[in-house]
Amino acid sequence: MRIYDIIAKKRDGGSLSREELAFFLDGYVRGEIPDYQAAALAMAICLRGMEERETIDLTTLMTASGDTVDLSEFGDITVDKHSTGGVGDKTTLIIAPVAASLGATVAKLSGRGLGHTGGTVDKLESFPGLRTELSPEEFRRQLYEIGLAVAGQSGNFVPADKKLYALRDSTATVESLPLIASSVMCKKLATGARSLVLDVKAGRGAFMKTPEEAVQLAALMKKIGESCGRRVSALITDMNVPLGRAVGNAPEVREALAVLRGEITEGPLFRISVSLAAQMISLSLHRRVEEAEEMVKNTLHSGHALEKLGEMVEHQGGDPRAVYDPALLPTSPFRHDVVAPREGYLCRLDAGEVGVCALLLGAGRQKKSDPVDHTAGLILHRAPGDRVFCGEPLATLFASSPSLFPEAEKRFLSAVDIGEEKPEPPTLIYGIL
Amino acid sequence: MRIYDIIAKKRDGGSLSREELAFFLDGYVRGEIPDYQAAALAMAICLRGMEERETIDLTTLMTASGDTVDLSEFGDITVDKHSTGGVGDKTTLIIAPVAASLGATVAKLSGRGLGHTGGTVDKLESFPGLRTELSPEEFRRQLYEIGLAVAGQSGNFVPADKKLYALRDSTATVESLPLIASSVMCKKLATGARSLVLDVKAGRGAFMKTPEEAVQLAALMKKIGESCGRRVSALITDMNVPLGRAVGNAPEVREALAVLRGEITEGPLFRISVSLAAQMISLSLHRRVEEAEEMVKNTLHSGHALEKLGEMVEHQGGDPRAVYDPALLPTSPFRHDVVAPREGYLCRLDAGEVGVCALLLGAGRQKKSDPVDHTAGLILHRAPGDRVFCGEPLATLFASSPSLFPEAEKRFLSAVDIGEEKPEPPTLIYGIL
Repeated sequence: MRIYDIIAKKRDGGSLSREELAFFLDGYVRGEIPDYQAAALAMAICLRGMEERETIDLTTLMTASGDTVDLSEFGDITVDKHSTGGVGDKTTLIIAPVAASLGATVAKLSGRGLGHTGGTVDKLESFPGLRTELSPEEFRRQLYEIGLAVAGQSGNFVPADKKLYALRDSTATVESLPLIASSVMCKKLATGARSLVLDVKAGRGAFMKTPEEAVQLAALMKKIGESCGRRVSALITDMNVPLGRAVGNAPEVREALAVLRGEITEGPLFRISVSLAAQMISLSLHRRVEEAEEMVKNTLHSGHALEKLGEMVEHQGGDPRAVYDPALLPTSPFRHDVVAPREGYLCRLDAGEVGVCALLLGAGRQKKSDPVDHTAGLILHRAPGDRVFCGEPLATLFASSPSLFPEAEKRFLSAVDIGEEKPEPPTLIYGIL
Repeated sequence: MRIYDIIAKKRDGGSLSREELAFFLDGYVRGEIPDYQAAALAMAICLRGMEERETIDLTTLMTASGDTVDLSEFGDITVDKHSTGGVGDKTTLIIAPVAASLGATVAKLSGRGLGHTGGTVDKLESFPGLRTELSPEEFRRQLYEIGLAVAGQSGNFVPADKKLYALRDSTATVESLPLIASSVMCKKLATGARSLVLDVKAGRGAFMKTPEEAVQLAALMKKIGESCGRRVSALITDMNVPLGRAVGNAPEVREALAVLRGEITEGPLFRISVSLAAQMISLSLHRRVEEAEEMVKNTLHSGHALEKLGEMVEHQGGDPRAVYDPALLPTSPFRHDVVAPREGYLCRLDAGEVGVCALLLGAGRQKKSDPVDHTAGLILHRAPGDRVFCGEPLATLFASSPSLFPEAEKRFLSAVDIGEEKPEPPTLIYGIL
């Protein structure tokens, strides 16, 4: 078998056999196939596509390329959750303890990634002292003791995906449905939870710009997961507008704590969190969705989910008091209000632009090696449809240096339209697969 | 400008501006853009294509990436010739001295390349002592003195093409009309001859498998050349069957000498050589093609073209006596006859397979660093349409070791079909653009 022939086959629109995909991934991970041949193949896949069977083969081969976590000892109740990524998306911090407090075993390995803010593990590290690097033994013990663990991915976790993703990221070959689906799902399959809830975002602040594309991606990921014996639900949710009011690592933790304390009981963040958590309960504990929604609302109201998060923070070396007293979370030294330039209705609040604003403030990473500033980010004071008055604060920005504010403010204002007519309320959940 | 955006633009089917192409080539040649990004772009070009304007820009930018040869001091009569490559194609050895003997200035820089046999410079090096590495000064002086020079490409000759071609060769991105056309034409434009005759081959032993594809490629190359102020003619010729009887370096030189001595005055090699040489004369000396054909036949008959080749061999340090006495050319120590397995008409003699046979005998290169065996190759004793008898020799193979014969013989026999019915004579010249 020659990699040249494999590239040429895909270039000409052929389907790669499992053996051919294995030959490529194996050679690539071992460094025998150079980046430039992998890049040519990735571009050919981008433009020629892959059949469902190829995508499933690619996914399972990437899953098998490194260490995997076997959760079979926990039986049928293990559940994981994944979001394709959006601005202000802190639902994992809410729904993981919710599901665990209701009896599911929530096992989540999460990457740091590139983006407007850090990933879930970065956000969790806003808790002073909290460790997200757990050994497989620590991870397993914590699942036994409290039914909840969220940890970073270890060094040899799906190395094929890690290497291929970095290459795609620099060769404009990220935009491929089968490559996106296989990259997400190989990580989920390597963790081993029996059930999986996907939150596929669609809109200006998401990778998929339209609900139609998001549905396609969700359906493909669901198919991959089910072909590997997992139970999978997927929500297609809106990401034209940031989710909730906080964007940034510690700022998002604070907002998640407010939901867990029962202080936020309406609005997009609450509604999407309840829907996602209900799917987790429905899949892992075999409840009807309506019943699961009631259970979720009750556990939020009772404070049990907040206690569960406190247990997790304590188990992972963090200070659990911060769960009950958010003043113990780190805060940024500088803040700056962005005010409305005129009166009217807030018609547009572009999630993509708000994300770039958070990135400019230091909340995210542009390169893998960049640190994140846990305190940086912003709080939105107005949502689309709100009436705003000239000079009133639309958002408060947080940063470690005031020098970051001018460019970030400019970016924020470019995210905003203020008009005369009240806009239609946006769709929040486009569908559930 | 970012290379990422350039790749993404071509991936999405966009047209690259001259500035974008320049940014890519410049960064790539300087090593600032890595191979893997260039490979992704090459695959995107392969699958998305290029507009004529993009192809012309790419070509002229590659031409300008290194040293060029200015032939303007020689006026209007400079002429070059290029073949897209075929098995047994030794026409340059014939028509370059023919055109020079008739008063054209024939300036040809030639690559070594990969293939069934070496390139023209490898073939010329069959003459004992002949040098093909000429300094620009030597090249120019020789053109003044005898109007004919064929030399290898120097170190800094179209470095952008050199680097890109090597990458394409290992990433299955050779098969792209705009990339093939620009790669050929940037080298021709860098040499600077005013007129150019292209021999675009079509068939089993050529890169273009059908005459239609060959016409497309020829038209594109002609367009590029003319847009840069060159006069260009292109012949589309057959390469289903090897051209002539000899395949290999010294064997092909011997056959070319036989044409120059006037011993071969019919058959495909003679007819194609006359047509190509007539185009060279017609373009560079402004003669009608019919008149030019007569001039070509006369100079072959008179021996003047043979004398011109002798002058060139002498100027380049070779032994000119070998031109008149081919016994002075090197010969292989071993030979082996392949005989007809049965009686009938020779129906097929697959140029591609015969080429591989020559390669197995040592006549060509599989890697750039491989040496070629000048004496290796084969002589065909029968052509398609000939009646053959069981046990009679179809070809004689030459090699430096008898151990090479079994596999080469097997390959040769796979190139051959013997049937009951005499086949139609093949088309030799599909057209002239």
